[in-house]
Amino acid sequence: MVGLQAIKYEKGKLQVLDQLKLPHEFVYDDVSTCEEAFDCIKAMRMMKPGAPAIAIVAALALAVELEHKKDATEQKLETVKYINSRLDYLMGSRPTAVDLSNAIKLLKKKTQEAAASSTTPDQTLACSHVRQAYIEVAEKILEDDHATNLAIGRYGAEYLRWQQMPILTPVNEDDELRYFTTSPPGTQGAPDRTYRKLSVLTHCNTGSLATSGHGTALGIIRSLHRMNYLEHAYCTETRPYNQGSRLTAFELVYENIPSTLITDSMAGALFARKKEEMNISAVIVGADRVARNGDTANKIGTYTLAVLARAHGIKFVVAAPTTSIDLETESGASIKIEDRAKSELTQISGAVVDKDGKVDVNHTARVAIADQRIDVWNPSFDVTPHSLIDAIITEKGEVVRSSKGTFDFKGIMPERWAAQVDGGEESKEANGDIVPTSVSEESTQFQMEHI
Amino acid sequence: MVGLQAIKYEKGKLQVLDQLKLPHEFVYDDVSTCEEAFDCIKAMRMMKPGAPAIAIVAALALAVELEHKKDATEQKLETVKYINSRLDYLMGSRPTAVDLSNAIKLLKKKTQEAAASSTTPDQTLACSHVRQAYIEVAEKILEDDHATNLAIGRYGAEYLRWQQMPILTPVNEDDELRYFTTSPPGTQGAPDRTYRKLSVLTHCNTGSLATSGHGTALGIIRSLHRMNYLEHAYCTETRPYNQGSRLTAFELVYENIPSTLITDSMAGALFARKKEEMNISAVIVGADRVARNGDTANKIGTYTLAVLARAHGIKFVVAAPTTSIDLETESGASIKIEDRAKSELTQISGAVVDKDGKVDVNHTARVAIADQRIDVWNPSFDVTPHSLIDAIITEKGEVVRSSKGTFDFKGIMPERWAAQVDGGEESKEANGDIVPTSVSEESTQFQMEHI
Repeated sequence: MVGLQAIKYEKGKLQVLDQLKLPHEFVYDDVSTCEEAFDCIKAMRMMKPGAPAIAIVAALALAVELEHKKDATEQKLETVKYINSRLDYLMGSRPTAVDLSNAIKLLKKKTQEAAASSTTPDQTLACSHVRQAYIEVAEKILEDDHATNLAIGRYGAEYLRWQQMPILTPVNEDDELRYFTTSPPGTQGAPDRTYRKLSVLTHCNTGSLATSGHGTALGIIRSLHRMNYLEHAYCTETRPYNQGSRLTAFELVYENIPSTLITDSMAGALFARKKEEMNISAVIVGADRVARNGDTANKIGTYTLAVLARAHGIKFVVAAPTTSIDLETESGASIKIEDRAKSELTQISGAVVDKDGKVDVNHTARVAIADQRIDVWNPSFDVTPHSLIDAIITEKGEVVRSSKGTFDFKGIMPERWAAQVDGGEESKEANGDIVPTSVSEESTQFQMEHI
Repeated sequence: MVGLQAIKYEKGKLQVLDQLKLPHEFVYDDVSTCEEAFDCIKAMRMMKPGAPAIAIVAALALAVELEHKKDATEQKLETVKYINSRLDYLMGSRPTAVDLSNAIKLLKKKTQEAAASSTTPDQTLACSHVRQAYIEVAEKILEDDHATNLAIGRYGAEYLRWQQMPILTPVNEDDELRYFTTSPPGTQGAPDRTYRKLSVLTHCNTGSLATSGHGTALGIIRSLHRMNYLEHAYCTETRPYNQGSRLTAFELVYENIPSTLITDSMAGALFARKKEEMNISAVIVGADRVARNGDTANKIGTYTLAVLARAHGIKFVVAAPTTSIDLETESGASIKIEDRAKSELTQISGAVVDKDGKVDVNHTARVAIADQRIDVWNPSFDVTPHSLIDAIITEKGEVVRSSKGTFDFKGIMPERWAAQVDGGEESKEANGDIVPTSVSEESTQFQMEHI
């Protein structure tokens, strides 16, 4: 089952969903040159700089050029030079995206290595080796990101399923669709217990549009739905930029996932009135950055949802690839929070609705929705303390808050822990400074940028 | 000191602020006929049907007509007939407004009584008596509402001031403006203790625009500011209809009250990051209806703020005239909550912002800000349980949650309590039904409509 794909790729062909036309139009743009990729990344305004989709589009656009030999080089060093200059150009599409910068570094390194190791005197063949080496790394960036998302989805869905209490006698037999069994039809073993399906709330957009597909928090919702565990998904509109109502709502509708949009302010009322009826079991959010102690920086509004979830006995779950876990940041207290433009709160853009209520997708307008003179506080994200988080779901499995209230990431990332925490402590003792160490120079999964 | 007046009245002249042009333009419309009042009330779309401003505008518009003898009647019974037919016409401007209906009933009754008690054979004089009787009652509706708001403001400000801990030595002497003394300059007695000024957060609009002036929750903020107790006021935008960013922000800017707008989702982050720095001491909200046990129905998002306030040790205060306290509703559980239109979440209107960032006040547009196909949950308000409320401020004083966690309204409204609770219980015992009893047939302060 293939869900929404924001990035469609096959060798020699790349198509990217036009995010500026969403949610009113669903159009793929061909991206066959680096120039087109540059414009496409520019248009991904709603995405944070660390969204994996940005690096993926950049890497694959050049792969498409090379597949079609657009470099037109005849010497392997010329091919390397072409690749380097195209990558430098692509970096300009989102200069603050450290993830993109890391991808570019890796692609350059691998290209360089391929050129060095190609010893054939046939320069046409040598150029081809360099191109193929580049293409393989670019494709691996895509595949690895997708595999990471699928793993997060599966671990998250299974974690949530294990939080459910078995119901030995379904309360309402007329309502069988709202239950699932531990052993679905066609699998080994008879169903032995019955559980209610569960509902969840998510915030912002963490889906196919930000990643290579599937998504992180929304990936867990997709997995729950495919495994027939999902009763209903709620999404917040996510003021001020409305990534929830524009993008997440679109993804949920596109995949026919039973879902409902609420304003951010309605989450409390939703939990108070619908928790029992809908079996609302979790709030699932993504992460901009997870500190070593589990404190999580994410889109503004996340912290409010965490407080509400705790007050209503609802699990609060963070979905994040291990690359978003920043072992060098000890706690959320040292995460600097950027304040964004006032106009994001006082004005909003959208497709114009005509007098008959029809949305004119070719005509957008910006309107003032507040007194333009009022002072505004617009932090881009907030920090949820680890004490309010029940589990952090990574592609290596879930890390659950211990009975002592702590998160231990050593188990899922022993090497990084040894290098960055234990090693870091030693080097700190040695010279008073922490020496930054990267995950692995060979990984296509890049550690998140510092925000 | 006169603050923002949405309704300007002097004998024979009524002007009402055009709410449709707010916050971008500040224009008063002359309302000298019932037809103009009808259109004016229609334009108060953002106001709930129970907003006192609606009944006040209707009552005063006819007072202006009568002051100018527009009825042109020569017999007192014709005057009565004219008044009745004009009031019936005005009822059509907002047929669901029970408050308006109650005002009209009172005005008709008083007019009828004046006609009956005027025994002069001079019909010109008799007509004049009837007109004067009407005008007096209409003016009293305005005055009583204003007096109620001022009393709420004063009681609320004093209540909050008493919650502050005295600071014997100011922590930061450079920052004297952030402190106030118990005995301001010019008053009796030397300052004996110093307190920090306090900051508050409010939700929705409960200010001059909804009432005769001053306001309820916003009235407390105005009073705090005038008494020099206020450090800073925060207002939420109040999705989905943005009464906070459109109206409250306008009122705060208009009166130069130090203030900042946030999205509803930022309240948690605000408390976590700014509570100490800004001395955020209370969330102050209005009420659509307060049940006998203190449970409070108010604009959607109120409950979320109450949970956040409790989690951060911030007082949660409801400002409501006693007419909003519904002793016949035992608890919030029996308050029915209306779901509103989906398009309120998925579309929004505003003045168009041109490419240079200039707001074109003569050109409004409606834009789509969500996937139009997504299912929406849009309850108009929520119910905050009394356990999360610290105090309910009325024009008769504050009712504070007792150590047992209960609210006792008997003290501030003994007669109504006797008639509606004690008497109600008796009649309930007698025939199984609660007999509705009104506050007092002579009062110009009307009990809130059932929502």
